[in-house]
Parts: sequence; structure tokens; C-alpha cells
Amino acid sequence: MSHSIKDDEVDIVIAALHSDLTSLLNEWRPVFSRFHIIIVMDPDLKEDLEIPEGFNVDVFTKSDIDRVVGSSSTIFSGYSCRYFGFLVSRKKYIVSIDDDCMPAKDNQGFIVDIVAQHIANLTTPATPFFFNTLYDPFRKGADFVRGYPFSLRTGVTCALSCGLWLNLADYDAPTQALKGGQRNSRYVDAVLTVPARAMMPVSGINIAFNRELVGPALFPAFRLAKEGKLRWETVEDIWSGMCAKVICDHLGLGVKSGLPYVWRTERGNAIDSLKKEWEGVKLMEEVVPFFESVRFNRASVKAEDCVVEMAKQVKEQLGQSDPVFTRAADAMVEWVRLWKAVGTSSAVPEG
Amino acid sequence: MSHSIKDDEVDIVIAALHSDLTSLLNEWRPVFSRFHIIIVMDPDLKEDLEIPEGFNVDVFTKSDIDRVVGSSSTIFSGYSCRYFGFLVSRKKYIVSIDDDCMPAKDNQGFIVDIVAQHIANLTTPATPFFFNTLYDPFRKGADFVRGYPFSLRTGVTCALSCGLWLNLADYDAPTQALKGGQRNSRYVDAVLTVPARAMMPVSGINIAFNRELVGPALFPAFRLAKEGKLRWETVEDIWSGMCAKVICDHLGLGVKSGLPYVWRTERGNAIDSLKKEWEGVKLMEEVVPFFESVRFNRASVKAEDCVVEMAKQVKEQLGQSDPVFTRAADAMVEWVRLWKAVGTSSAVPEG
Repeated sequence: MSHSIKDDEVDIVIAALHSDLTSLLNEWRPVFSRFHIIIVMDPDLKEDLEIPEGFNVDVFTKSDIDRVVGSSSTIFSGYSCRYFGFLVSRKKYIVSIDDDCMPAKDNQGFIVDIVAQHIANLTTPATPFFFNTLYDPFRKGADFVRGYPFSLRTGVTCALSCGLWLNLADYDAPTQALKGGQRNSRYVDAVLTVPARAMMPVSGINIAFNRELVGPALFPAFRLAKEGKLRWETVEDIWSGMCAKVICDHLGLGVKSGLPYVWRTERGNAIDSLKKEWEGVKLMEEVVPFFESVRFNRASVKAEDCVVEMAKQVKEQLGQSDPVFTRAADAMVEWVRLWKAVGTSSAVPEG
Repeated sequence: MSHSIKDDEVDIVIAALHSDLTSLLNEWRPVFSRFHIIIVMDPDLKEDLEIPEGFNVDVFTKSDIDRVVGSSSTIFSGYSCRYFGFLVSRKKYIVSIDDDCMPAKDNQGFIVDIVAQHIANLTTPATPFFFNTLYDPFRKGADFVRGYPFSLRTGVTCALSCGLWLNLADYDAPTQALKGGQRNSRYVDAVLTVPARAMMPVSGINIAFNRELVGPALFPAFRLAKEGKLRWETVEDIWSGMCAKVICDHLGLGVKSGLPYVWRTERGNAIDSLKKEWEGVKLMEEVVPFFESVRFNRASVKAEDCVVEMAKQVKEQLGQSDPVFTRAADAMVEWVRLWKAVGTSSAVPEG
């Protein structure tokens, strides 16, 4: 691996919402086989997993979740099961994808190595305090442009790397329904630091992060009452991502977006999804002014401190408008408790 | 032209620092021949211009500049002559390139139509208040991603479009000298809105803007004492771009960056350039905290009001550290005076 980190500093976390992972893992074999893989089964998934030979895998089931976190296990339902993997990992870096993500090809036709690209994003500096028009200045062949202040060129540590999606992009249900035939075919060969104070929608489909720095800020706290098992019916990653972004801004850490791409295959019927309430869409509108105004105490110098402080503000400022926010605030506090408890526990199975 | 604007709403402005424009205009013929072109000669250029047949061109020379702006003409020396073109234009949109910019090819090998792309950038909304991970949601094949607030999807008017450069990128003298062989070969197929409150280095090499909205904010105010005739020896566009960005932020207008690319050919010797003082590099460091803290009066609702307000703050907050800032502030006020005077004058030659 480039960028001088060791293979054993990385965990690949896969949320399994479907039992047959044969083609998924076989397609990813050239990229994943060197790494330890954590597969967390959706607690609602009843069938046994099918996993091909030749991988260094730990599978976590509902009973593992119950054993480790006890009564908190309900927060790990559906896509949120991935966060259990974040919790029990002991590695510095996490790369996490959904089980409907296949390898994409770049503009030259080469398979995209998502681990190498995410780790490159995380191990080269981010530049949140001044936008560089040629994108990530630390990529080969790029640099800082004329006018970029030299004092800001060292950058800051990148804590979060958000990848993208070819074929089926991560649209919401209304967009999917309105533009059912729309596919993303544009491979944009760029990574950029999302500037400080800019808000963004973080998708959990294809993501990587420095677990030591921002692990506590990536949590399954925001659950819609009528949440389904299709990505466009959930916003737990969007909520968590907004929290993580403002926390990174406060801590002076960077968030990058762009490469690597994964190829997403189709699943579900967006029209059916539309028949549900657009609960997530509506709630997200309300939170924008909140996230714009969030400020942290200077004494909060770790992600877990910020999450607890944020939970308090969520409850105070949003709690009265909808009970989902109060539940989210409580879940955030519980997450930090779990993070500390599990982090110091020897009860966690080692990969 | 797409995006339903008329050809006669666009002026192409070319700053001529060299007399032979034959190959420049012949290369651009398929793109430029439908439009009115304003060529402004560097007042120091002594030879007559060579311009091929078949273009709708108005050329402005030193004597034109002297006639229109009188004693203010010294501010239009070197690359700054382009701003005279911005001043005398009567069109809604300006597309401006340096005379060392040739047409680039996209990833499919097609010639990039910079006018169409810049106008597309300017006539589709910008989204400065929330970052869209799939870049410009108004491009064909793209959209807003899941989690993007619906209330922010209408966007705002885009006032400024900053294009990029293949082959010779716009690096500063130290970078050019250190990495003399570095060429930009990465065609990134993306346009994005630079988020509100993010600072950026605007390069004047390949730029377009809505003249009615931000024309007064694009000015030749910042002149280095030992400024040369190579792009990396100047920062007047960087200074003006920082001003324009904070003014756009205040006015609720958007700034886009990315496509279109131009192909830049080599000129000058970066090592020679290094022998000069890095005056621009040093001064730019000081201005970052200033631009981060600039705030405007709510009553300033036009770009020209903001420029005058900004000039006052520049003088007060930066004037004592270096006389270049006081001169810049005075030039900004003078620019607004000229803008108003020339804008209502019938003395300007019509294209």
C-alpha cells in the first residue's frame, strides 16, 4: 500500500442487508483480500451469509451485537448495522461500503482501488481554509495555484473521505422516482476538500475515516419512524455526516469528497418508496439553520466531547419540533457511552 | 447558443500583451466568430496588432484608454488592460481570456467551447449554501444527492465563472521554478459552486462573469511595485477575486469553478522570475485574516457599494502595513467612479 501505512491499520466494514455476498466479495477480491474485513449482518436478516473462501473476515450477527451492547442493540437495525463494525474495530482507518457496491472503472478502464484511494485521501493533508481550484493539491500532477496562501499550504489532517457512485447515484426517493432512468456515467477525476463551514450531505454508501479522530462522530442516531431497507429511505448517515462535518470544522480536521467511485447496482422501486411519507426530506429542511449555527466549547477537543455537547444542543433547539430529534440526541449520548465502554473492553472479538 | 441567451449579450475580452494574434484567433474561430470581441492592447505594446479577417472586433489602444479615462489610464498597464474591456463593454456577460490561451480538448477529444460552458455556468443557478457531492446539480446527467435540502435546491444566481487550464497551469513563480516540468494533464469533468464563506484564488486567465451584477467588483486595483509581464508575477486578479468572492457572498450570488479548460502555452522563464522579490506571495499572506473578517453593511445591495465599503476597510485595516494596500483602496474607489462615469457615457465606442 502506498502512503506508508500498513495493511493491518485498515478495517473494511460491510453492512450486509442481503445474505449472498459471493459476487460482492469475488468482485472486490483483488482489492480487499489483503485486509481484515468486518461484516455486520442486519439484525433482521434471517438467512445465513454466503461468503466465498479466501478472505480474512469476521462476521457479526444479532447475537454478537446483543452480547456486546446489550439493550442498545436496537440502534443497529438496517443500514445502521455498519456502525457496530465501526464500534468494534480496533484499526486506525475504516473503509466502509454497502453490499450493493461493486468495483467501478476509471476513465482509463482500470478497476478503482477504493482502499488505496480512500487511504490516500486520509493520509495526505486536507485544505479546508482556502479552496484550491485545481482540487486536491497533494495528488500527483496537481499543486497549489497562484494566489494560494503559503501559510495554508501545509493543510490539516484529513479525517473523513467521502467517495461517490457510478451508475446508480445516491439520490433521494423523489429524485429517483422523477428520473427513474437517470444513471450517473460521469467519472470526475477529482478529490477536493470541502471547505470549512460549508455543509454537505455525507452518504454512508462509500466512505472512509480515521477512526481514532472521528469515529465517535459517525453514529446511527437518527432513525425515521417509517424507515425502510432502501438507502433512499434513510437519512441516518446524512445526519451523522452533518454532525461529523461541523465537528471536523471545530477540531480543525478536513473532510474530502470525490474519488473513489464505486459502481452501484439497482435495487428497489423508487415509486413504491414514494408512497411512504417523505419524513426524512421534511426533517432535513429544519436542521439546516441549526447546523449553520452550532458552535462548540473551546474545551471540547475530542470528537466524543463534541458529540455530547451537540446532543445537548439538538435536544434544546430541535427537540420541541419533533420527537425524532430528542431520540437522536439520546442516541448520540448513548453512542459515546458505548464507544468508551467498548473501546476499553476486552469482550470484543479481535479480527 | 444553449441556455437561451442571445449571441449579442456576450462580449469576449482579450488582453493583448503580444502583437500577433493570428494563431490565437484562428484557433478560436469556431468558438468566437459569432461574438463581438473586445481586444485591449497593453499600453506598453508598441507594435501594431495582427488580427485575421472574419471577426467582429473592436480594438482599444493606449490612446483610446487615455481618451476615455484620462489620468486614470495608468491602472490599465500589462494584464490590467483587460479591465478596460470590462469597463467599456455594454453586454450582460463577459468572457475573458489571456492571449496565451488556446482551445483545449475534453476527454472525448472534442474542442472545448468556452463561451458555451461559461454561459452555461452563469445562466444556471449556483448553490453556495450547501455543497453537492455530485458537483453542479444543473449539469446534464447530474442532480442533487440524497440529503440535499429541498429548500436550497433553487439555488441563487451565478455571477462569476472561473475556468481552468491544461498544460501550463496557473502556478506562482516559486512553484513553476521548483516544478519546471510539471504540466497539468488532468481534465476534470466538473463544475462546482465554491461554497459561501470559502476563500479562493481567482485567476484572470480564463474567466467569465455577469457584468451587470459583479462588473464593478472586477478591477485592476492591486499592483505590485515590481510587477512583470508574466502571469506569475502579478496578483491583481487574485486580489480582485478575493474581493469579488466576499462581495458575492454578501449579495447572495454564486461563484463557480471548474470547466471550461483552456490550453495554455509556455512563456517566460520561471527561474528568472524567482530573482524578483516574491512581493505578491508575501502580501497575500497578510490579507487572509482580513478577507475572513470582512463584513458589509446590509444597506450595500450593489457590487459598487460593496467595493467602496471594502476600500475603506482595506485602507483602515491594511493600509499601515504596506502602502500597496492604500494604493489598492484608492484604485478601488477610482474604479467605481470610472464604472459609473463610463457606464453612463456616450463617449464609449460601441461594438
